[in-house]
Amino acid sequence: MKEKGTRIATFVRLPLYRSHLRSLDPMPEHISAAAIAGALGFGEVQVRKDLALVFGGGRPRTGYVTKDLLAGLESVLERRGAGDAVLVGAGKVGRALLEFDGFSSYGVEIVAGFDNDTAVLGKTDSGKDILPLDKLIPFCKKHKARVGVIAVPVDQAQDVCDMLVKAGVQAIWCFTPVRLEIPNHIIVRYENLAASLAALFARLDGLTV
Amino acid sequence: MKEKGTRIATFVRLPLYRSHLRSLDPMPEHISAAAIAGALGFGEVQVRKDLALVFGGGRPRTGYVTKDLLAGLESVLERRGAGDAVLVGAGKVGRALLEFDGFSSYGVEIVAGFDNDTAVLGKTDSGKDILPLDKLIPFCKKHKARVGVIAVPVDQAQDVCDMLVKAGVQAIWCFTPVRLEIPNHIIVRYENLAASLAALFARLDGLTV
Repeated sequence: MKEKGTRIATFVRLPLYRSHLRSLDPMPEHISAAAIAGALGFGEVQVRKDLALVFGGGRPRTGYVTKDLLAGLESVLERRGAGDAVLVGAGKVGRALLEFDGFSSYGVEIVAGFDNDTAVLGKTDSGKDILPLDKLIPFCKKHKARVGVIAVPVDQAQDVCDMLVKAGVQAIWCFTPVRLEIPNHIIVRYENLAASLAALFARLDGLTV
Repeated sequence: MKEKGTRIATFVRLPLYRSHLRSLDPMPEHISAAAIAGALGFGEVQVRKDLALVFGGGRPRTGYVTKDLLAGLESVLERRGAGDAVLVGAGKVGRALLEFDGFSSYGVEIVAGFDNDTAVLGKTDSGKDILPLDKLIPFCKKHKARVGVIAVPVDQAQDVCDMLVKAGVQAIWCFTPVRLEIPNHIIVRYENLAASLAALFARLDGLTV
């Protein structure tokens, strides 16, 4: 169904609408879907549909009341998608994810990292804990972590995945290039950065999407 | 067309076949699509199709000659997708990408980083250069860089994009959450890590894909 397909895509665009509205100085009393679309490089119809899904209906052609629109976006973003993730594997990629400051605008956070290498334990620059791996399960249970991020070497990924499932996470975001064996009720998203870059070059070499 | 759609997907799976074959010790004389599929968690039909696209035809049911299959994969992977990328923005994410050691198995590399902050210039742990931004265009031209990776703050992304286009790159891999204005002949891939994590939480909250 097309409508189902749009829901997450809409959701992930909401922070962009919010940051655009926040950046307006002075904030105009009204703002049109066309103006928002123009500023963000989206189609006007898409913007109208996205905002309709959030607010459950259309708006007069004069535009949205800007502060109401912003308040609505804040409220939806606060309600939806909030939650804590934990990360296992504090190597280069893992540490960058742990320190990445872009998550907060989406209402999500990686709250702590775990590693079996004692040399990397401690606090990150931004004050997040990197804890020993044997603290993973109790930490997840205590903090009700819902997503586990895996950024460990290939040969450790399945064991870490099993621990995260045991710890009660409901979704896995996996940066290690493996296929995980995992219960069906757990959502998995694989992120293969190397494959993404390779695919870009492949397109340049004339392979088609 | 379905067939078109499979080509890049096939391409990005090839390194997984290669690393599986390389990991076999001792290497068997023959190997079947079923055995490869089982080891990697893929469907047998998919493996057969992927390898057929690479080798231009079917194989007898006894399986592939393992060393010929490996040699074929090496050859395709060497030919396809090879190339150098440059990165602009040596913050946390940028530096992690620059130091990420997973690209090489896909035959691609980020060869150098650029930044306008003199404090981050120099060599990375793995010996890659982080150069001042005014060296970007001459460097790209000299090294024939084909892909530019953008990992700068939002307000600098468009300027950096314009420089990369001027420098002759053919594709942009953008980690900054913006929409770029860019000539049509340039391929752009946006990577929004925060949106990806937020989308995982959204699915847990009952939003459908």
